[in-house]
Amino acid sequence: MNLDCVAGEPVVNQNYFQDHPLFGFVDWSLRGIGQVVFQNNPLSGLIILAALFFNSWIYGSICILGVVVGTATAIALRADSGLIRDGLFGFNGALVGLALVAFTSENFRTGAVPSLYLAVYIVFAAAMTTIVFSSLSTLLGPYKVAALTMPFVLVGWLFLFAVLKFDNIEAGPLAKPVSPDQYVEGVAYVLPTWYMGIGNAIGQIFFQDNWISGYFIIIGIAVHSRIGAGMALIGATLAALVAVIFGAPEGAIRDGLYGYNAALTAMALGGVFLVLTWRGLIYTLFGVVVTTWLWASVAIFLEPIGMPVLTSTFVIVTWLMLIGAYGFSSLTPIPPAEATTPEDNRRRFLAAGGTRDSKVTMA
Amino acid sequence: MNLDCVAGEPVVNQNYFQDHPLFGFVDWSLRGIGQVVFQNNPLSGLIILAALFFNSWIYGSICILGVVVGTATAIALRADSGLIRDGLFGFNGALVGLALVAFTSENFRTGAVPSLYLAVYIVFAAAMTTIVFSSLSTLLGPYKVAALTMPFVLVGWLFLFAVLKFDNIEAGPLAKPVSPDQYVEGVAYVLPTWYMGIGNAIGQIFFQDNWISGYFIIIGIAVHSRIGAGMALIGATLAALVAVIFGAPEGAIRDGLYGYNAALTAMALGGVFLVLTWRGLIYTLFGVVVTTWLWASVAIFLEPIGMPVLTSTFVIVTWLMLIGAYGFSSLTPIPPAEATTPEDNRRRFLAAGGTRDSKVTMA
Amino acid sequence: MNLDCVAGEPVVNQNYFQDHPLFGFVDWSLRGIGQVVFQNNPLSGLIILAALFFNSWIYGSICILGVVVGTATAIALRADSGLIRDGLFGFNGALVGLALVAFTSENFRTGAVPSLYLAVYIVFAAAMTTIVFSSLSTLLGPYKVAALTMPFVLVGWLFLFAVLKFDNIEAGPLAKPVSPDQYVEGVAYVLPTWYMGIGNAIGQIFFQDNWISGYFIIIGIAVHSRIGAGMALIGATLAALVAVIFGAPEGAIRDGLYGYNAALTAMALGGVFLVLTWRGLIYTLFGVVVTTWLWASVAIFLEPIGMPVLTSTFVIVTWLMLIGAYGFSSLTPIPPAEATTPEDNRRRFLAAGGTRDSKVTMA
Repeated sequence: MNLDCVAGEPVVNQNYFQDHPLFGFVDWSLRGIGQVVFQNNPLSGLIILAALFFNSWIYGSICILGVVVGTATAIALRADSGLIRDGLFGFNGALVGLALVAFTSENFRTGAVPSLYLAVYIVFAAAMTTIVFSSLSTLLGPYKVAALTMPFVLVGWLFLFAVLKFDNIEAGPLAKPVSPDQYVEGVAYVLPTWYMGIGNAIGQIFFQDNWISGYFIIIGIAVHSRIGAGMALIGATLAALVAVIFGAPEGAIRDGLYGYNAALTAMALGGVFLVLTWRGLIYTLFGVVVTTWLWASVAIFLEPIGMPVLTSTFVIVTWLMLIGAYGFSSLTPIPPAEATTPEDNRRRFLAAGGTRDSKVTMA
Repeated sequence: MNLDCVAGEPVVNQNYFQDHPLFGFVDWSLRGIGQVVFQNNPLSGLIILAALFFNSWIYGSICILGVVVGTATAIALRADSGLIRDGLFGFNGALVGLALVAFTSENFRTGAVPSLYLAVYIVFAAAMTTIVFSSLSTLLGPYKVAALTMPFVLVGWLFLFAVLKFDNIEAGPLAKPVSPDQYVEGVAYVLPTWYMGIGNAIGQIFFQDNWISGYFIIIGIAVHSRIGAGMALIGATLAALVAVIFGAPEGAIRDGLYGYNAALTAMALGGVFLVLTWRGLIYTLFGVVVTTWLWASVAIFLEPIGMPVLTSTFVIVTWLMLIGAYGFSSLTPIPPAEATTPEDNRRRFLAAGGTRDSKVTMA
Repeated sequence: MNLDCVAGEPVVNQNYFQDHPLFGFVDWSLRGIGQVVFQNNPLSGLIILAALFFNSWIYGSICILGVVVGTATAIALRADSGLIRDGLFGFNGALVGLALVAFTSENFRTGAVPSLYLAVYIVFAAAMTTIVFSSLSTLLGPYKVAALTMPFVLVGWLFLFAVLKFDNIEAGPLAKPVSPDQYVEGVAYVLPTWYMGIGNAIGQIFFQDNWISGYFIIIGIAVHSRIGAGMALIGATLAALVAVIFGAPEGAIRDGLYGYNAALTAMALGGVFLVLTWRGLIYTLFGVVVTTWLWASVAIFLEPIGMPVLTSTFVIVTWLMLIGAYGFSSLTPIPPAEATTPEDNRRRFLAAGGTRDSKVTMA
């Protein structure tokens, strides 16, 4: 990701902190939290962190632990400093920490303080996401797509399985439903299905079962990219709509389960990694609908082994649609190294002529 | 795939229709149906479509819907026109439409008219195969192998899972056995085990539980490539033989389940993507035997989650054996862009000297 | 793998046999057995084979059958002769033969003489590993990592599933526990937990449930690389320690199940494919801990379908960590074509300057 000095955005001299010998690490870690929702901006990260603390100080602290371990591991292994400074080695660590606490706590909503064993385990898992991020970035390099949250998904799955079997890590069966099957069917859709469902969908990206935190996170996105915030809302809303039309259980919609992958797909395709044009928008909405269905698919597939979907359907659909987009001349995908905000990507695309051929000159 | 004006083949001025502004789309769609069995020929597609209508007008119509949506999506997204004109964006759409109807109908043999919800779902699934085809072709490009029916398999699995959980799409448990486990053991092998089993194996490629349709499909293949038709028969026959020798359930053999992947492997390796020589033939027969065993493997693996194998074992074995073949100098694999019919591939190979080194000059 | 004329190692004019028209095949096959534990040395292979015969003449014979079929298939298909001569087409065949006998025998420890049906099946499986090795080597080529034992894991899984369903191959449910779940919990750790567990971990690499055979195999490794033997011991010991700390079942530790993947990861990362430096050692130990946890993870994942983990976690962790290592300038990974012994790799690295930049000049 390039510099985020986006024209027309409120920029508070971010590079001062990014380059600072002392505060640099804080800046990179806050960006790491922002990168979960594609915002290379420490203020976004700070607001999102506040939204987590608003829900539960435990999740807030675990998020800090995860992003710090992920980023510090990258520094210790001397990874690419540009990627470190943009927070790209931190966001998967933050997510895996949150997931391991969320799915081993009796109370999913607030989480529980991890035991020493689990804490050690979380540190290893967060460090492993840094290695997997480097690995997947290399594997995906030739295809010009980003690793997205796949390091978190892979490490999350592998570590979650094992955690359930070690005597010294106490973990009951998952307290939280992870599949539409586990909700009561036939409940009527009401107004809170919508406004709580949309807020929760944004919150679930960070494992926050709190719809107010979800709307705070939207604000955190909006300070860096208003299109990004709009896309998150569009993704979560369209997902709820599709789920309602196809008769999904009300509880799963209200908990935001149908929408958190869809919101991420909407943000990724809607401007960050694909230039936002009319055709790009239709392609994005198509991807949101497919992501919503596939969340149900993968949830049902994983249910017998008790695994949560995490953000796997977002990653799979976004990868397939972005790699596919390079074969369609009506769309203009953006390689990870050039992607900034939807606003800036679109501005550069138009400045370069606004046609597919201008893609070549964007670099 | 290149032009299919194969010397010694009955060619009815195909390019006239392929280039026609009005009839072009019909030509490309018929080729799409033919491409399921590697025949870039509208007449093959037409005969196969007739074989489907012979069994059930529902399946025939769904096949048309799928191939049209897949091809039209590619046109709307401005995909490579050469690939569109060869029907390569249509065959996965046709298959996914057939699969979604077959596995949601109470009567597998005839299928049921889809509800509006299911019809919308099929349209999205068929459109998604076009995107996944583009994506997989890019991913596989460096390795010079074709995407085969993997877009259908992936989209089919993902969409089938979800379809079973939406209230507004009525779908009982799969009416059709999908694994050898579900057949009675100990039934004696009789003559119909063979002639019905071989015909059904060809039919099952298109989800047709009708052995007479299967033999019609063979005729559709033969009008474009007699070697191709022979390979389909050899694949289905050898699969039945292997299943009998290893004591597989009679019902599964008679239903053609052991043979439909094997028939596809036989066609793909037996001349289309590998020059047909004596060594190539032995390699192909080896692949047919392995595909037969692996169908049983994958069927048993997928049974607990109620998923059908689709054509996954054909794709896996063919990919591994074709990519592997590039490392064996006794074999001459053919990159997708140069592959036509077994007859034409072999003619060009012999014209170029008939040795491995001549592979370089085939392009 | 290059020549193994390692400075400071006892070399008995190996190339004499490797080039010999008559004894060459014996030399390549023995190297193939050694390559399971990364030793390109016929004497290592011979000692390991003796360790197998010490446990059971059946396993010893099957190991010979597998390595011979794998190597002969490569010769028949005219694969790269350098790879054949280094035994790289044999080791996956040996492993898949051992696995198919081990998991179809009533007595896991000694194995049973295979029926004719199973013997045919083993020959096909071993031949298939040669094709999959070629395929995976091509797929992994751009990323400069080796196929490791993945051909064995893939073919082993696919063939094991099917074998359980053919009437003419007698196979009960797996006699051997394949997951920590299947062991009694709460048994106290005692001294034999350690010395038997470590020996068994090495033995389990070759499916030998015999801790004395395990220590013989260590000797086989040590004749070619003392660092390699040390790494195998460190890997197995650290795995047992991690399992004990996290409260794993005593029986699974004593049977070596937590340790066989970890020992392989320790050898692969500890000098063979990554230059052994202090940072490299810490990276390796991290990988050993993660491999140990993930063995438990994958075992629990595969248990419902009754599949053993085989060496899948070793391959997954080693691939991710090696591909990731190319992105970390504190580490020096070694492409497969240049990897020899830990001693020789380190010597060349130091001779070239001992810094990351010297990696370029190693080729």
